[in-house]
Amino acid sequence: MNTTKVKAFGTEAQDADLIEMMIERREVQPKDVEIDILYCGVCHSDLHTARNDWGGSQYPIVPGHEIVGKVTAIGSEVTKHKVGDTVAVGCMVDSCRTCSSCEKDLEQYCLNGMTGTYNSPDKHLNSRTYGGYSEKVVVDEHFVLSVPENLDLAAVAPVLCAGITTWSPLRHWNVKEGSKVAVVGLGGLGHMAIKLAKGLGAQVSLFSRTPSKEQDAKDLGCDEVIISTDENQMKSSMGKFDLIIDTVPYDHDLNPYISTLAIDGTLVLVGYLGQVKSLLNTVPMILGRRAVAASVIGGIAETQELLDFCGEKNIVSEIEMIDIQNINDAYERMLKSDVKYRFVIDMKSLK
Amino acid sequence: MNTTKVKAFGTEAQDADLIEMMIERREVQPKDVEIDILYCGVCHSDLHTARNDWGGSQYPIVPGHEIVGKVTAIGSEVTKHKVGDTVAVGCMVDSCRTCSSCEKDLEQYCLNGMTGTYNSPDKHLNSRTYGGYSEKVVVDEHFVLSVPENLDLAAVAPVLCAGITTWSPLRHWNVKEGSKVAVVGLGGLGHMAIKLAKGLGAQVSLFSRTPSKEQDAKDLGCDEVIISTDENQMKSSMGKFDLIIDTVPYDHDLNPYISTLAIDGTLVLVGYLGQVKSLLNTVPMILGRRAVAASVIGGIAETQELLDFCGEKNIVSEIEMIDIQNINDAYERMLKSDVKYRFVIDMKSLK
Ligand SMILES: [Zn+2]
Ligand SMILES: [Zn+2]
Ligand SMILES: [Zn+2]
Ligand SMILES: [Zn+2]
Repeated sequence: MNTTKVKAFGTEAQDADLIEMMIERREVQPKDVEIDILYCGVCHSDLHTARNDWGGSQYPIVPGHEIVGKVTAIGSEVTKHKVGDTVAVGCMVDSCRTCSSCEKDLEQYCLNGMTGTYNSPDKHLNSRTYGGYSEKVVVDEHFVLSVPENLDLAAVAPVLCAGITTWSPLRHWNVKEGSKVAVVGLGGLGHMAIKLAKGLGAQVSLFSRTPSKEQDAKDLGCDEVIISTDENQMKSSMGKFDLIIDTVPYDHDLNPYISTLAIDGTLVLVGYLGQVKSLLNTVPMILGRRAVAASVIGGIAETQELLDFCGEKNIVSEIEMIDIQNINDAYERMLKSDVKYRFVIDMKSLK
Repeated sequence: MNTTKVKAFGTEAQDADLIEMMIERREVQPKDVEIDILYCGVCHSDLHTARNDWGGSQYPIVPGHEIVGKVTAIGSEVTKHKVGDTVAVGCMVDSCRTCSSCEKDLEQYCLNGMTGTYNSPDKHLNSRTYGGYSEKVVVDEHFVLSVPENLDLAAVAPVLCAGITTWSPLRHWNVKEGSKVAVVGLGGLGHMAIKLAKGLGAQVSLFSRTPSKEQDAKDLGCDEVIISTDENQMKSSMGKFDLIIDTVPYDHDLNPYISTLAIDGTLVLVGYLGQVKSLLNTVPMILGRRAVAASVIGGIAETQELLDFCGEKNIVSEIEMIDIQNINDAYERMLKSDVKYRFVIDMKSLK
């Protein structure tokens, strides 16, 4: 298959900085859309994959799965998009399309394994997929989303991962007008969870370990901040929440949060992969049919629904724009949570 | 308030055997139903409460919350039942009736605390509630169920606790024709879970640690037995079950079972109260939106639905009938799981 070389930013090894490199993009196939990348959000997964924190990284790694750009070419069978459209690509670029998950628009749970936007086996080229820290990307139209024209195109990029990761559980657990939702953690995911839950008409609380985040949370529309280290505040929140979206990316005790769930409430983990070292106590669960669940990103149809919802409600991420040349510094700052709330790369800087 | 003395079997201390004693039953109030008890099932909770295993036992304890009997008197405002009806009482005899749980027919999750059939504060007498190991009981009509006349009245008793405890999650998690359900543990709860899931048209598997239970499980209608200590059998069950009903009453590792859940599957704990000492791994949960939940008994309307379902499908418990005088031996045998699958006391033996 013919390919074109494009500029990208990636890393050749887990302990190396990201640097400029050339990668290959396939020739546009009948169902493909070629996208000139304008903006790419910077997700914690980018950093973890670049550094092989989860194992399984095959180098070079070109991260980036919060992609917004313009269509520059389409294949002969493409019907969803046309040249010039503003489009987006999130965490997936392919899936089997035939399994029971794919048939239910749950490509993220494809039983044959979805193809990640980076660090996945590429079905077309004998290589790996490379992400959005690059000039262009070629993606099957099914995995290309339409971006409402009224939105700030840089600030919409994080919707493609941080947004859908929190939107999918909000929708799956049926959050609506008057629902009581709590968010644990105020980072890229947490700040989107607050905005989206508010957009759906929920009453939204933030659990935080420090009072210093109170004003930030309220600026985002949050109704209440509960200091999780304050026993009285935790006690007065018992039995309150229909859904808790827990975005904390490291191991932490779930039991204090479970007790703040209402009858039939669910705590859904979206940030932490691994063992929960504090022991789960079944008593508050059994006495209120409470559940602990976990969820990853969302399906393609659901992501389009989210983008349309963001267009309607004029919701985007709070971002700090950077040039691609500053990505290594940005990673260091992310590790210190020193960003409100998402870095987005202005891809003009790569040209 | 006037009371009547009736014979009962109970215990005066946590390390004492159950013995015959006299207890008081209140005079029938306008909404009350007086029941002559014919049969009472023997639940693990009876034993745990008699022995104060969970703390909170206030003596004397008269256990028994799987009660079947005949109506002998009704109050002036009773409309649900009449003298001579075959009725049943389960784990609850009262609740606040006004909280959001009670309003949703979830009396078991009453926010003001439901009144247990035994060892709860009695709202009418200045004492505790006493259970079904007795000649008669007086209960508000709302908490008195109708028993279909075609069922074996002794064998229907365990439906009131073991049955509803497994039925409620089967219904809440929407088990239907073709659902794939697994049951962990083959005791009083487990054997009812198998029968009820089969009754709903599900494909039913049993997880067991030993091959010796295979024939028993198949006799109950189970489609398959998976030996949980056999790695290959566990591996070939990965991603299979829509719902797992985990009836095991002691701490055990949940992770191997979670991996056998399908996308959006739930493992619901109904048997174990306490800390889960094996660490929950979020990875299989996040990669399939899998959940761990817990559930206790069921609401009154749901219990009536279950009894009607049992009448239709002719489903009852497998029981071993005993005289009340043998209750202490029965407890010892229960601790060794030496019963298929539930002891039921023939209350004639108390007269
Ligand atoms: Zn991401
Ligand atoms: Zn698939
Ligand atoms: Zn019971
Ligand atoms: Zn209530």
